Amino acid sequence: MKLILLSGGSGQRLWPLSNHSRSKQFLKVLRGSNGLESMVQRVYSQIAAAGLSDSAVIATSEDQVEILQNQLGEQIPLVVEPSRRDTYPAIALAAVYLFSKGDVDPNEIVIVLPVDPYVDIDYFHKIKELENLVEGNGFQLGLLGVEPTYASEKYGYIVPKEQVNHSGALIVDHFKEKPDTEEAKRLIEQNALWNCGVFAFRLGFIIDMLTIKELPVQYELLVEQYEHLPKTSFDYEVVEKTKEIAVLPYQGEWKDLGTWNTLTEEMNTSILGNGIVSDDSLNTHVLNEMDLPVAVLGLSNAIVAVSPDGVLVSDKQSSSRIKEFSQHFYKRPMYEEKRWGWLRVLEHTKLPSGGEVVIKRVCLHEGKNLSYHVHHYRDETWTIMDGEGEFAMNGEFRVIGPGNTLHIPRGAWHAIRATSQLELIEVQMGAISLQDIHRQTMNWDGIDSL
Amino acid sequence: MKLILLSGGSGQRLWPLSNHSRSKQFLKVLRGSNGLESMVQRVYSQIAAAGLSDSAVIATSEDQVEILQNQLGEQIPLVVEPSRRDTYPAIALAAVYLFSKGDVDPNEIVIVLPVDPYVDIDYFHKIKELENLVEGNGFQLGLLGVEPTYASEKYGYIVPKEQVNHSGALIVDHFKEKPDTEEAKRLIEQNALWNCGVFAFRLGFIIDMLTIKELPVQYELLVEQYEHLPKTSFDYEVVEKTKEIAVLPYQGEWKDLGTWNTLTEEMNTSILGNGIVSDDSLNTHVLNEMDLPVAVLGLSNAIVAVSPDGVLVSDKQSSSRIKEFSQHFYKRPMYEEKRWGWLRVLEHTKLPSGGEVVIKRVCLHEGKNLSYHVHHYRDETWTIMDGEGEFAMNGEFRVIGPGNTLHIPRGAWHAIRATSQLELIEVQMGAISLQDIHRQTMNWDGIDSL
Repeated sequence: MKLILLSGGSGQRLWPLSNHSRSKQFLKVLRGSNGLESMVQRVYSQIAAAGLSDSAVIATSEDQVEILQNQLGEQIPLVVEPSRRDTYPAIALAAVYLFSKGDVDPNEIVIVLPVDPYVDIDYFHKIKELENLVEGNGFQLGLLGVEPTYASEKYGYIVPKEQVNHSGALIVDHFKEKPDTEEAKRLIEQNALWNCGVFAFRLGFIIDMLTIKELPVQYELLVEQYEHLPKTSFDYEVVEKTKEIAVLPYQGEWKDLGTWNTLTEEMNTSILGNGIVSDDSLNTHVLNEMDLPVAVLGLSNAIVAVSPDGVLVSDKQSSSRIKEFSQHFYKRPMYEEKRWGWLRVLEHTKLPSGGEVVIKRVCLHEGKNLSYHVHHYRDETWTIMDGEGEFAMNGEFRVIGPGNTLHIPRGAWHAIRATSQLELIEVQMGAISLQDIHRQTMNWDGIDSL
Repeated sequence: MKLILLSGGSGQRLWPLSNHSRSKQFLKVLRGSNGLESMVQRVYSQIAAAGLSDSAVIATSEDQVEILQNQLGEQIPLVVEPSRRDTYPAIALAAVYLFSKGDVDPNEIVIVLPVDPYVDIDYFHKIKELENLVEGNGFQLGLLGVEPTYASEKYGYIVPKEQVNHSGALIVDHFKEKPDTEEAKRLIEQNALWNCGVFAFRLGFIIDMLTIKELPVQYELLVEQYEHLPKTSFDYEVVEKTKEIAVLPYQGEWKDLGTWNTLTEEMNTSILGNGIVSDDSLNTHVLNEMDLPVAVLGLSNAIVAVSPDGVLVSDKQSSSRIKEFSQHFYKRPMYEEKRWGWLRVLEHTKLPSGGEVVIKRVCLHEGKNLSYHVHHYRDETWTIMDGEGEFAMNGEFRVIGPGNTLHIPRGAWHAIRATSQLELIEVQMGAISLQDIHRQTMNWDGIDSL
């Protein structure tokens, strides 16, 4: 059995804490065994506890690679989409990866699931049962269906017809997306279940489907043709066109922590970070990622979220509307977790003279390095605040430490490696653009004698 | 006639926009003829319009000197208290300053007023009438009394007994501080007026009083003995002990913009700075001094104030309670207006290794300079972002401009002068303390040939 975890999301509904490079699944707001953890960290530790971590690959896009490596470690197997499309292309690519790169047998069962459900460990035990359901009963697709706790208008419903032998599973009759409350009530009376985006199938099921469509089942070739795959969901492209589908009911905890309202319900503190909330502010949450103190007075049922990207102040019922507004603000994320550590933009300003300045605080973890790169339209000054490291510029190397200042004129190739955790302040001056960076590989090993 | 404008205040009630060095009177939130202006700028332009600016001195404390010079110009006459005490010592010091340094005749009328009432120009015309009232009718003290518009519990009331001839003034019977609503209603029926802190007297009245108490009436001597003056208000020490007091009624606009609730009523926009407020958020104000975007969703009657010092989110009725909370946060102001320009702290952090780093953005206006100074426990690195200037270190001078980096090791005397508006980033490293600065005078004139 193999697991494909889908990691996507645009990060708009939990603005300002989430952004394009830090979607909701990466926010460290949940209480874990070693302090705060993100949804993806929580799920990954549950997968390990269920004994499934050796089976899992994560299907994701380029802009989440660094934060996944930062939060789960660099050894995690990733299948990276060349561009963001939808769940059908992403699952197809991951399946082809398992088939052509992972040598997985076409008869092996693959289970696809989102990377960020808020569930208890039973969910993962239930997922293991899907393997038997598909393998032993001849269904092309097996789904997990959550037993509804209320007549929600937000979810898709799986409507069953009959039991599958003694398995506890049901045969699917049809699907119904986002019904109104009255219809949802009727569906629940018919034992309908919420569709939680879990799909089980034999690997060959997808491989055969791609072959019939004359799409390549060799990984590198599919990557090349990725732009030609339809931008549609797996539900639309596969599930709705499949005849023999079984669904396994799941009764345990399952939540979509996709809005501030649902997310704050799972925090076991009302204040994260530097903040004070007056006693008469009931059911109000503060999430503050800045040093800046936050005070909330006389406001109940509110959410106050503060990050380097912005400040959200919302009535909880209104908080899902942030998606309409955060687009207006959209700009480069001010805080990013990277493969090598993190960076925070302290200031991005136009000068009276017309020039532009960006000031960043940069932290490299021990042993990590920035790639060897060059900018053509900006100069940089780095002031080392803490830690030791090695600095390379135009082929010359030097050992650096606290108090050193490094001038990097435009056109100069440069890189840095941290021999102990290293913090620096970067002042960029000139014409600032995210595109103004060109990289080449370099070998740090040769300079270990420094 | 001379005016003494009292500029005090601790800046806690309008946190986070106001702080110790920027009390409420310095917040630029009111619509002026040339863009936004502060209360002190508004009052000073009204004094000029009333033809009184040559008569005015401002009594203030050391920590407001630079912001007063920044907002009103360096030529403004200031009487600076050696330490903050109360209105009686502050008025006594200013009176002695006029008497011994300004050669003002003891028979000249002095009028004391707060630096930040929100009034219309009639207020200043009325103040001129106080001169005649005291001079022509033999009263030791003349007050201005605001005609109440409602039975407020917040103010002090002046209760009159009879008319003074044909002047429109009244003779004061007694005073009543902060009555309850019922008593306030009864007082208003007796034609009582609000005490707005305006006092008119012959200069000699205070000089004689100090002489009787054997206090010096020579400015430098009184400065030396300032710590021995009682820490009491002018109302308590002088007004309540004076028998012959007249009060002149004033009917025009008068407001104390001392809380977010009253202040936002006088803003003619609901959003200052980068912000969005949803349509269903009624009577909600955003004041945002940061680049950080602010979004407010579904919250009515709220105030959201964001500055480098912090974030306040409050129901308007609760906003005056911020005074209880802001003390918890009290630390060094993150934004300060100085004689020479302004500075903003971008980051103040303890490093994993135990050291401390402060990162500041500093702007010097054209022609201004930092004093020649030294730090013993920190190194500094300055990166010039914009503008041209001259840099002095340990007696050596150099011309500096954009891209230059200046290393200032602990123990080195240094200064900088802006020949055009100059911006720099300062990185301080070491043991950071506001006390670790020692100054000496230096002469920039000798290096004009640079």
